[in-house]
Amino acid sequence: MTQDEQVAAPTDDMPWSEVTPDAARRLMVAAVEAFAERGYHATTTRDIASRAGMSPAALYIHYKTKEELLLRISRIGHEKALEILRRAVEAEGTAAERLAEAVRSFVRWHAGHHMTARVVQYELDSLGEEHRPGIVALRRQSDAAIRKIINDGVRSGEFDVPDVPGTTVAVLSLCIDVARWFNAEGRRTPDEVGALYADLVLRMVGTRS
Amino acid sequence: MTQDEQVAAPTDDMPWSEVTPDAARRLMVAAVEAFAERGYHATTTRDIASRAGMSPAALYIHYKTKEELLLRISRIGHEKALEILRRAVEAEGTAAERLAEAVRSFVRWHAGHHMTARVVQYELDSLGEEHRPGIVALRRQSDAAIRKIINDGVRSGEFDVPDVPGTTVAVLSLCIDVARWFNAEGRRTPDEVGALYADLVLRMVGTRS
Repeated sequence: MTQDEQVAAPTDDMPWSEVTPDAARRLMVAAVEAFAERGYHATTTRDIASRAGMSPAALYIHYKTKEELLLRISRIGHEKALEILRRAVEAEGTAAERLAEAVRSFVRWHAGHHMTARVVQYELDSLGEEHRPGIVALRRQSDAAIRKIINDGVRSGEFDVPDVPGTTVAVLSLCIDVARWFNAEGRRTPDEVGALYADLVLRMVGTRS
Repeated sequence: MTQDEQVAAPTDDMPWSEVTPDAARRLMVAAVEAFAERGYHATTTRDIASRAGMSPAALYIHYKTKEELLLRISRIGHEKALEILRRAVEAEGTAAERLAEAVRSFVRWHAGHHMTARVVQYELDSLGEEHRPGIVALRRQSDAAIRKIINDGVRSGEFDVPDVPGTTVAVLSLCIDVARWFNAEGRRTPDEVGALYADLVLRMVGTRS
C-alpha cells in the first residue's frame, strides 16, 4: 500500500486482500467494525452476518465460530505489523534511518487502520488459551525487530541507550497507542504523525535528527 | 520486559475511597473488573451485582443504570489522573524536574491501576453523548497541564521542542499505554517503569538527564 492511499483513507480501509472469497472478506470487515464498536463479547455472529448483509448460515460456511474470526483478524493484523517492521530492519541505511522508517511506517499503519489495530490490541485476552501462543510469538518477533535496530545503533555508536529492552517496549507502545487516539477527522494526517514520532523516537535513543 | 504478557490483569487496587457507602464502593470495584474483562456492552447489571455478592435490586439503590457506573468510574479515573498532573505542574523546581515527576507519577498510576485505566480509556465511546463533554473537558485539562510544563521549559531554554502540541500528545499517550501492556507479574515495578519513562520523556523534549 502506498502512502497516498493511507492518507486518503478516512476510515479503516484494511483491504484484507488475502482473504478470499469476497464473502469471507466482507464478513471479516464487518467483524472488525462490530468488535471495535461493541467489543468482542457483546458481538454475536448474527450481528456480524447482518452487518455484511448475509444470513448467519452463510457466515458458518466461512467461519466456524466468532473466535475463528477474531483469530484471523488478530493473525493478519500482527503479520502486517511484523512485515512493516521487518522491512525496516532489513533495509539499507544507518540504524537511525532504519529506526525512523520503522516508526514512520508502523505509525502510519496504526493511524490508517486504527479500527483493526484496536481490535488486534484490545481483544487479545478474548482469544482462547490455545490460540494465544501463536499471536504472542508474532509479538515477540515485532519486539525483536525493533530491538535489533536499537542494538545495531548502540553498537555503531549512533545511539546512546542505557536500557534497550525497556526502550524497545516504549517505542512500540508509543506507536501502538496511536490507534487509540488517532482521529481520521483530526488535524494531523497519518504521515504527519509518523514524521513527528520518528523524530521523537530518534531523541529517545539519544540521536538528534 | 516484553509486550506480550497481556494475560488477564490480576487485581487493581484502586481504593475508590471517596465512594461511600461500602456497598456502592464494592459495586464499583465489581464493575471495573467486569468491564475490563468482558467489555461494557457485554456486561449486565446482574453480572456486576453478582460479582459484588449482591442482588440486582441492591445495585439499583446505588446506581440507576450501568451507564451511571461507567460514568462515575470514568469521572473518578480522569479526576485522579488530572490531580496527579496538576500536582506536578504546581510543584517547585525546574521544568525538567516537574516534567520528570509528572511522568513518574502518571506512569505509576497507570501501571498500578491498569484495570481501571483500561476501562477509563477504552470505554470512552460507550458513554452517552450527554456525558462525554464533561469527560472531554477533564482530558483537555490533563493535556493543558503537560503542555504548560513543556512550554515553561521551552521558555526557560531547558527544552528544545519544535512541536509542543504534538509532543504533549505523545508524552501522555506513552504514559497511558502503560495500562495496556503493564503486567503486575512482569519483571518491572510501576516505579521502575516510571523512572525509565521519565528519562525517555526528558530525551523527547531535548534535555538529557
